[in-house]
Amino acid sequence: MTYQIPEKMKAWVLGDPGELTLVEKPVPQPGKSEVLVRIDAVAICATDLEVIDRGQPAMIQGGLPFNKNFTPGHEYMGTIVKLGPGVDEYKVGDRVAVEIHAGCDTCERCREGMYTACLNYGKNYEGNDKGHRANGFTTDGGFAEYAINNIKTLTKIGDNVTDEEATLIVTAGTAMYGLDMLGGLVAGQPLVVTGPGPIGLMAVAVAKALGANPVILTGTRDNRLELGKKLGADYTVNVRNQDVVAAVREITNGEGVNYVMECSGAPNAINESTNMIKRGGKICLCAFPAEPVEVDVAALVRNNICLLTIRGEGRSAVHRAASLISEKRFDASLIHTHTFGFNDLPTALKYSKERIEDAIKVVVKIPG
Amino acid sequence: MTYQIPEKMKAWVLGDPGELTLVEKPVPQPGKSEVLVRIDAVAICATDLEVIDRGQPAMIQGGLPFNKNFTPGHEYMGTIVKLGPGVDEYKVGDRVAVEIHAGCDTCERCREGMYTACLNYGKNYEGNDKGHRANGFTTDGGFAEYAINNIKTLTKIGDNVTDEEATLIVTAGTAMYGLDMLGGLVAGQPLVVTGPGPIGLMAVAVAKALGANPVILTGTRDNRLELGKKLGADYTVNVRNQDVVAAVREITNGEGVNYVMECSGAPNAINESTNMIKRGGKICLCAFPAEPVEVDVAALVRNNICLLTIRGEGRSAVHRAASLISEKRFDASLIHTHTFGFNDLPTALKYSKERIEDAIKVVVKIPG
Amino acid sequence: MTYQIPEKMKAWVLGDPGELTLVEKPVPQPGKSEVLVRIDAVAICATDLEVIDRGQPAMIQGGLPFNKNFTPGHEYMGTIVKLGPGVDEYKVGDRVAVEIHAGCDTCERCREGMYTACLNYGKNYEGNDKGHRANGFTTDGGFAEYAINNIKTLTKIGDNVTDEEATLIVTAGTAMYGLDMLGGLVAGQPLVVTGPGPIGLMAVAVAKALGANPVILTGTRDNRLELGKKLGADYTVNVRNQDVVAAVREITNGEGVNYVMECSGAPNAINESTNMIKRGGKICLCAFPAEPVEVDVAALVRNNICLLTIRGEGRSAVHRAASLISEKRFDASLIHTHTFGFNDLPTALKYSKERIEDAIKVVVKIPG
Amino acid sequence: MTYQIPEKMKAWVLGDPGELTLVEKPVPQPGKSEVLVRIDAVAICATDLEVIDRGQPAMIQGGLPFNKNFTPGHEYMGTIVKLGPGVDEYKVGDRVAVEIHAGCDTCERCREGMYTACLNYGKNYEGNDKGHRANGFTTDGGFAEYAINNIKTLTKIGDNVTDEEATLIVTAGTAMYGLDMLGGLVAGQPLVVTGPGPIGLMAVAVAKALGANPVILTGTRDNRLELGKKLGADYTVNVRNQDVVAAVREITNGEGVNYVMECSGAPNAINESTNMIKRGGKICLCAFPAEPVEVDVAALVRNNICLLTIRGEGRSAVHRAASLISEKRFDASLIHTHTFGFNDLPTALKYSKERIEDAIKVVVKIPG
Repeated sequence: MTYQIPEKMKAWVLGDPGELTLVEKPVPQPGKSEVLVRIDAVAICATDLEVIDRGQPAMIQGGLPFNKNFTPGHEYMGTIVKLGPGVDEYKVGDRVAVEIHAGCDTCERCREGMYTACLNYGKNYEGNDKGHRANGFTTDGGFAEYAINNIKTLTKIGDNVTDEEATLIVTAGTAMYGLDMLGGLVAGQPLVVTGPGPIGLMAVAVAKALGANPVILTGTRDNRLELGKKLGADYTVNVRNQDVVAAVREITNGEGVNYVMECSGAPNAINESTNMIKRGGKICLCAFPAEPVEVDVAALVRNNICLLTIRGEGRSAVHRAASLISEKRFDASLIHTHTFGFNDLPTALKYSKERIEDAIKVVVKIPG
Repeated sequence: MTYQIPEKMKAWVLGDPGELTLVEKPVPQPGKSEVLVRIDAVAICATDLEVIDRGQPAMIQGGLPFNKNFTPGHEYMGTIVKLGPGVDEYKVGDRVAVEIHAGCDTCERCREGMYTACLNYGKNYEGNDKGHRANGFTTDGGFAEYAINNIKTLTKIGDNVTDEEATLIVTAGTAMYGLDMLGGLVAGQPLVVTGPGPIGLMAVAVAKALGANPVILTGTRDNRLELGKKLGADYTVNVRNQDVVAAVREITNGEGVNYVMECSGAPNAINESTNMIKRGGKICLCAFPAEPVEVDVAALVRNNICLLTIRGEGRSAVHRAASLISEKRFDASLIHTHTFGFNDLPTALKYSKERIEDAIKVVVKIPG
Repeated sequence: MTYQIPEKMKAWVLGDPGELTLVEKPVPQPGKSEVLVRIDAVAICATDLEVIDRGQPAMIQGGLPFNKNFTPGHEYMGTIVKLGPGVDEYKVGDRVAVEIHAGCDTCERCREGMYTACLNYGKNYEGNDKGHRANGFTTDGGFAEYAINNIKTLTKIGDNVTDEEATLIVTAGTAMYGLDMLGGLVAGQPLVVTGPGPIGLMAVAVAKALGANPVILTGTRDNRLELGKKLGADYTVNVRNQDVVAAVREITNGEGVNYVMECSGAPNAINESTNMIKRGGKICLCAFPAEPVEVDVAALVRNNICLLTIRGEGRSAVHRAASLISEKRFDASLIHTHTFGFNDLPTALKYSKERIEDAIKVVVKIPG
Repeated sequence: MTYQIPEKMKAWVLGDPGELTLVEKPVPQPGKSEVLVRIDAVAICATDLEVIDRGQPAMIQGGLPFNKNFTPGHEYMGTIVKLGPGVDEYKVGDRVAVEIHAGCDTCERCREGMYTACLNYGKNYEGNDKGHRANGFTTDGGFAEYAINNIKTLTKIGDNVTDEEATLIVTAGTAMYGLDMLGGLVAGQPLVVTGPGPIGLMAVAVAKALGANPVILTGTRDNRLELGKKLGADYTVNVRNQDVVAAVREITNGEGVNYVMECSGAPNAINESTNMIKRGGKICLCAFPAEPVEVDVAALVRNNICLLTIRGEGRSAVHRAASLISEKRFDASLIHTHTFGFNDLPTALKYSKERIEDAIKVVVKIPG
């Protein structure tokens, strides 16, 4: 199979914060261990909105140069249309989902397999290119017709997974990575997911698929909680109506849970989690409040509770999540609510940001 | 070897908070898997002062009944003078150091080996005795002539370790357990210890013995920092004179450290630790502030930093620490500063509490 | 709820090897942390046949005294009819499945949570009772109307699980423990199970429930392989008809699998597994050949393959397995083929031993 | 600092097995993430002798093309004389020790941090270059004046480490990696090292440095065992004079050890190790017999003993080992016995192979 690859492509590029423009630019060429992906669909994530509104994370946090005319978008999938030199792990025509992060491969963390904590995060610009890539964050991402991906970041997907579903794999992979951090042995163990955003909902689905029992989802919106039930939550608690700690204690016969996947970023989430959990339990933070918050550290230590953190989709968890989705262990497509065309990206972003018509995952389709 | 065991013994007992009285009471009898220990020496820990001033932790935290006439004291060592039925792992005459905690052995955590996080913590009183013991915390401890210990809590010590040194083994074991939680592979890795109290100083000693490099100790008192150097610190930082984060960054060529053992309990300790550490690093909390504090959770998550916690001396770390002390890998006796007789316990407590004459570890010797 | 408990009960007891007699003996009394279980059903395991034919394992391996009039049978379930002093974790009337092993709780391994590797294995006889129990192996088991169980060994089961199914939980728990040893993160990973005996079939079911993909079952009998498909195997290989290594390589596009659960005990199993597996993969031995066998150790080392071993159902894996069965993630009852009455135990053993009518799991029901 | 780098260099190259010739060839040029190392010293390893006598491992095991005119030698150290584009982690003039393996960075194992088990091992030849490097095994190594190294493989060394000592760091790193595989928490635990070759002797030194206690070394040659004592062995057992299992049991009061580092490759080593070890203990195979051997698999499984394997110096263990050597925790130079000049490599190989004058580590110095 071969594809006609044009010289130029359409891509949305970010100028100053908030300035997203559709332009024409050259189709990039894959290097060693890379492929060119024709993007078929891309989902919108809350982090995209931050990147667009505040600029690239690399600029904000690390004082790094702001790469103008950079293309955001990281939850994409597509079709391999060209192989870099020496690539035989994939072939042209393969449909793939992607991971966001490609580590530098030389730092201490990458050498341990912790590539999402690469010590050269964001060092990918002229004059200081250590090979780290975070597509859509610090390197060109998926709001474009084509993108370059290292083969490390690819997961092959079968025909039984739709384009829209495939855009959600990296979110499920993030949830899977969080569960890995908790030890991975969640079968038969009570677990709370706080916050029914896309990662929280996928955390419910993956935890249930791996046998966590019961899975309790907490949140503020009943429709989201209902969706959680469809994805595998055994119980839901609307924190507006109920004392969430008391509710979780009651569901678990007073014992509390073994694990909390904190996906809300709420200011009091760590303290509430501490009170829902058994001595010696673990909390994985998949979200965080923007500002410093009060934490009852004494309660954490006295109860031997550990706080683990993840940023993205590490340890190849995306492959494991993709397999569960491919085997239909849960219906990831339930969180996909809206679809727009490529030119309508601004509308798609608006739907996502303002949760218009209860939007959860808004997907942009790009005609091949 | 046999010992004459009297029917009665002298023991300090706690009445209402603050009321410590020397009384006579029956020498207890060892049951299955237990021995009777004649206490030769006991060190004073900051937690003893809390227990004495505020009452048993079990009372305060869990609403459990307050066991009046309970004997505090948990950092003791002594000589086995009587074996419970069936005990052949030890013999009369063996000198032993002790662990504080004996788990219930039936709960989920004990079954995982996490006996210091026993789900039946403090359940050892009439009508609800699940077998958990925390000697000196919730069950009779070492401010007495004799004590009962489960054989699980014993570590045999050789003649090359003095009584005073032996009282410090459990502190070194706590530090060792903290290092276990960090993964145990600290050789050649930069590590900060914050807070040069007894646990912090032992953390320096154990981390250096296991090859951590460099070991950086931070604190407010120069004499304590000097002591840290003798115990193995490669660098010290007096936080009154220096920006501690900048100092650690400078020592590590801007890279930061892999691990922080937080032994200060200072309100800003987690935030400072976060800024001293590399992405993907780990902090072990061995101390904590009494009140909730502001924590920059976003910085933890963005940098993939995990917060681990310990309470006491789990996973048989005391055995490992005792071996290092027995092999003279470091000189634990450096932190022993004062010795008093059994009847002078109130003076000993006062020295410890008010740090009179720069007291660090104050030991009470009990004539055999 | 209360039960009338008779003074005497019927129990099968083992005299010299091979001599199994039905006798009357006193109903035992539960001690601290123990309950009396009225046995409702017990399944027969190949190890029972060995115990009966060759005598207690403790006698054979360790030169320990042979406990005559001991009752074999370890895969049982029943109803709690009496609580030992202080037990409030369970109540009379609870239906429970059991684990075989209760560790001594004082040895180094029990202290790590590895209670199936208790260093006091088999030390439970007069004059040397360290508290280890392996019901049906070295202490009285389930071919009787009543048995004593430590609460550590219990798993509560719901009404949606039949007695027969419940007898299979410990087998599923053993398979689960094997998967734990492999790291527990099998979702989306290719895995071979060798040998479709009861443990192998449960390994297929549990591995598939946890998301392993594909699961490949190898064996010699087509009907067993068919059953494996019903339990979750994606592929089966009859080693009589196919080169098993070539077949596994073909199924996995030449790559080999990440994990092998070796449940056949075949003499060449380790070598074949080595050839089916990727570099850096892991083999868990759940079975073993009686005699020493030739192993290509060079191939193991050159390919960084680790050989892990399990004996029984450690690390509370039975709880996790029970949860999967209770949630109907797979149908354990498919391996239950025959049922007999209590008095017909000899016939049941004969069916199991000689695989009469393709017997897999033969269950003996005991009227309440 | 700059260096004059000639266009041509002297290098020993391997033709047909056994044919080692000194030739002139172009000095290679470092690429991205690479440096050019001027080799100052290289030690000879038993594996070098195998590579030279039987050809490259890649040829033998994998049917890969034999890279004629390849340069063996992997235990080298030197001085960085040129940086590849973008390298700023090191500077010209840095003295470095090297790791052998550089993984492909894209395969499943590399992504887990297991780069010595890279699934693209040996794929580094024209037409199939996946980027894997095993210098001296499948890519040009250290019997030359210059070599290329990826920065991943470098460890900076200080002036307090001699060139000769530095050549031994990778051997110590291999021993360290073996200890990592055993869990890394060897302090206070009894451990046997079987086989006092270079890896065994370094295993003694590293295990003792990390606190293993006691460390028992077994072997056949008294002078090697004596050397083991100098490096940290608490006990030695000459297997020609003593029943090794009985001796280890006696030293450990009948209990056996927790860990065996098997460094002998003797045919009966696994069985003997099994009998020296406690239930639930672990064996790490650092060596192996050339031919398949009889293994008592039943004894392994019945005693829950795991067999771990390593090939080389994974998980950045070389850094940890280098730190211990730099801190003089043990005197690695004790195993260095002979030094030759670059032109005398054939004599050096002969000394190493035939153990002339009790040669252990023979080092070749290359004038700068």
